[in-house]
Amino acid sequence: MNKSRIEAFSDGVIAIIVTIMVLELRAPHGSEWRDLNELVPKFLSYLFSFIVVWIYWNNHHHMFQTVQKVNGKVLLANGLLLFCLSLQPFVTAWMGENHFARNPVILMGIVLLLSAISYTLLTFALIRLHGSDSVLKKAIERDRKGKISTFAYFIAIPLAFIHPYISCGIYATVAIMWLVPDKRIENVLDN
Amino acid sequence: MNKSRIEAFSDGVIAIIVTIMVLELRAPHGSEWRDLNELVPKFLSYLFSFIVVWIYWNNHHHMFQTVQKVNGKVLLANGLLLFCLSLQPFVTAWMGENHFARNPVILMGIVLLLSAISYTLLTFALIRLHGSDSVLKKAIERDRKGKISTFAYFIAIPLAFIHPYISCGIYATVAIMWLVPDKRIENVLDN
Amino acid sequence: MNKSRIEAFSDGVIAIIVTIMVLELRAPHGSEWRDLNELVPKFLSYLFSFIVVWIYWNNHHHMFQTVQKVNGKVLLANGLLLFCLSLQPFVTAWMGENHFARNPVILMGIVLLLSAISYTLLTFALIRLHGSDSVLKKAIERDRKGKISTFAYFIAIPLAFIHPYISCGIYATVAIMWLVPDKRIENVLDN
Amino acid sequence: MNKSRIEAFSDGVIAIIVTIMVLELRAPHGSEWRDLNELVPKFLSYLFSFIVVWIYWNNHHHMFQTVQKVNGKVLLANGLLLFCLSLQPFVTAWMGENHFARNPVILMGIVLLLSAISYTLLTFALIRLHGSDSVLKKAIERDRKGKISTFAYFIAIPLAFIHPYISCGIYATVAIMWLVPDKRIENVLDN
Repeated sequence: MNKSRIEAFSDGVIAIIVTIMVLELRAPHGSEWRDLNELVPKFLSYLFSFIVVWIYWNNHHHMFQTVQKVNGKVLLANGLLLFCLSLQPFVTAWMGENHFARNPVILMGIVLLLSAISYTLLTFALIRLHGSDSVLKKAIERDRKGKISTFAYFIAIPLAFIHPYISCGIYATVAIMWLVPDKRIENVLDN
Repeated sequence: MNKSRIEAFSDGVIAIIVTIMVLELRAPHGSEWRDLNELVPKFLSYLFSFIVVWIYWNNHHHMFQTVQKVNGKVLLANGLLLFCLSLQPFVTAWMGENHFARNPVILMGIVLLLSAISYTLLTFALIRLHGSDSVLKKAIERDRKGKISTFAYFIAIPLAFIHPYISCGIYATVAIMWLVPDKRIENVLDN
Repeated sequence: MNKSRIEAFSDGVIAIIVTIMVLELRAPHGSEWRDLNELVPKFLSYLFSFIVVWIYWNNHHHMFQTVQKVNGKVLLANGLLLFCLSLQPFVTAWMGENHFARNPVILMGIVLLLSAISYTLLTFALIRLHGSDSVLKKAIERDRKGKISTFAYFIAIPLAFIHPYISCGIYATVAIMWLVPDKRIENVLDN
Repeated sequence: MNKSRIEAFSDGVIAIIVTIMVLELRAPHGSEWRDLNELVPKFLSYLFSFIVVWIYWNNHHHMFQTVQKVNGKVLLANGLLLFCLSLQPFVTAWMGENHFARNPVILMGIVLLLSAISYTLLTFALIRLHGSDSVLKKAIERDRKGKISTFAYFIAIPLAFIHPYISCGIYATVAIMWLVPDKRIENVLDN
């Protein structure tokens, strides 16, 4: 079973998720700059979610470079990841609509955590299929960034009860950490 | 005539169908957890339909692994399948909006049944084109899951007159049956 | 310059056009069958447009089977075709919303005519690039169906002033004519 | 790291951007021609943005013909470009909704300018990766059209304070300049 169609389907779903979020930025009727004021939190929410989803696509792309085959479990884990990511437009809209209030920020954390967990499950399914000597295994076994992200989301959720901006700061920090191009898989491939 | 573009177009349409359904989950204006209450049936409806459409993509992907060529009839049957699947967002929204009331549940059953029938027509068109000795024919001739699904949808529709939750239970059972990774085609390919 | 990306982009745009039209079928709040009554003309309008756009994808797919290269003019003609097709969701919604009233039916005819003309321009651009001895040229030079369609749309527009249903009947007849699988290009390729 | 998936993802995102803009053209309830009057500026805005986004796809397609590899910086610059383009539906809707009023026209100029700058960054990232002797470098080093566009957007923004139609005229002129098929890369490849 080859990987090209799972890549194509994932690309399609992720491309749509990343793009339909912009539909929440509805054009106001007035043409004054202040008419855009209410859109500022929605825009920030969109910007954040665009980066998150784009990072997932980026990591997915990197990881599948070293993938040679897929099986039913990989398809299942990939489907779960796509489902979690598909909830991003909803939590993005809810968080932006309510100006980063506590509950929407918590729900964003939960969706981010579930996405991170399902990505990890996808990683496990791929490693099990390719064996412990594979390039894939070597490339992602010390997935420090992944572990840090999952842990960060995990602690960010309760911290929202102190102040939701703390959680937002953690989410943003994780995103910035990932924006630095990922060298892990590239390095292993080079050796 | 090669199969790559029919795969690409189907991937595109299915990816869009599976993703635009989430647009029905409109973010509420309030930020209380109870503001999400009214979204619960819509979310369950979306979760169910995501799984159904993802299973179709999955089966489509499996089946086209063994496909070597396509003709006009295959394109037609594939178009019919995509049309039936494209009605999924509408029935999903109607069923969620009305908290799994009888009529929307019946219409969901009809759309599910029509999708199953059009998938079977696609199977027939592919088998006729590839001949009765083909790998494809061997792989899908004993399509027990497909027959069970069609039959289950067929009886689920009238059972909604007793109670729509019976039908919903049947739909969910069929979906869970398919989530177990499909070994049929893989097995034949291995031998 | 190779053709794979123009195919991928066209597949993407056409897949989105064909699918977002279903968003016009908004789920009614009530769960009675009669609540769906007002959706019947919208559904028929959607069914018609799905078939039209699918036929364009189908013909595009057939034609590009024989294409070996593309140039700037081909890209331009293809972009014009995609723009005309992208107006389909709007005219479909307007026609369905207004129960096939005269003006929307006329506008539908104009969009259909413009799409047919831009498809013909794409054909010309491809033939000029491939030369008059090419397989492509032989395959599509006697494009009877294309000429009939263009002519039919041309006369259907004024006939809407007698009654819009006459025009609708002509549009439907053209669509049915195309649903019969296209043998032209396949035949030439077989010889 | 190969380029096929970055092309597929970009094609997907650009195809969605170019298509969802048409959702702003909501079908009016009336069926009179005058009911379309209010849509005229929205249609012109859509037409303009369709051309702009299509030109970006076109240039992206041309440039990636000569690309042999991608790295993290290329992915980042590409992501930035896609983000800027994803704002196009919003500014298109705002500009159309407000009949080309000054502020929306200025914001359109800013988004156009940011898109042009991020495209230039993508170019730089690709040239640095491929080296100064590459075909890519030769093909795009005298990117006159790109420089003219960036400069034109830059001066169009303040000119909106005299009259927004001046800016609109400049935007339209830039778009028309690009619609003439791009010979640069094709020429270098031919030699």
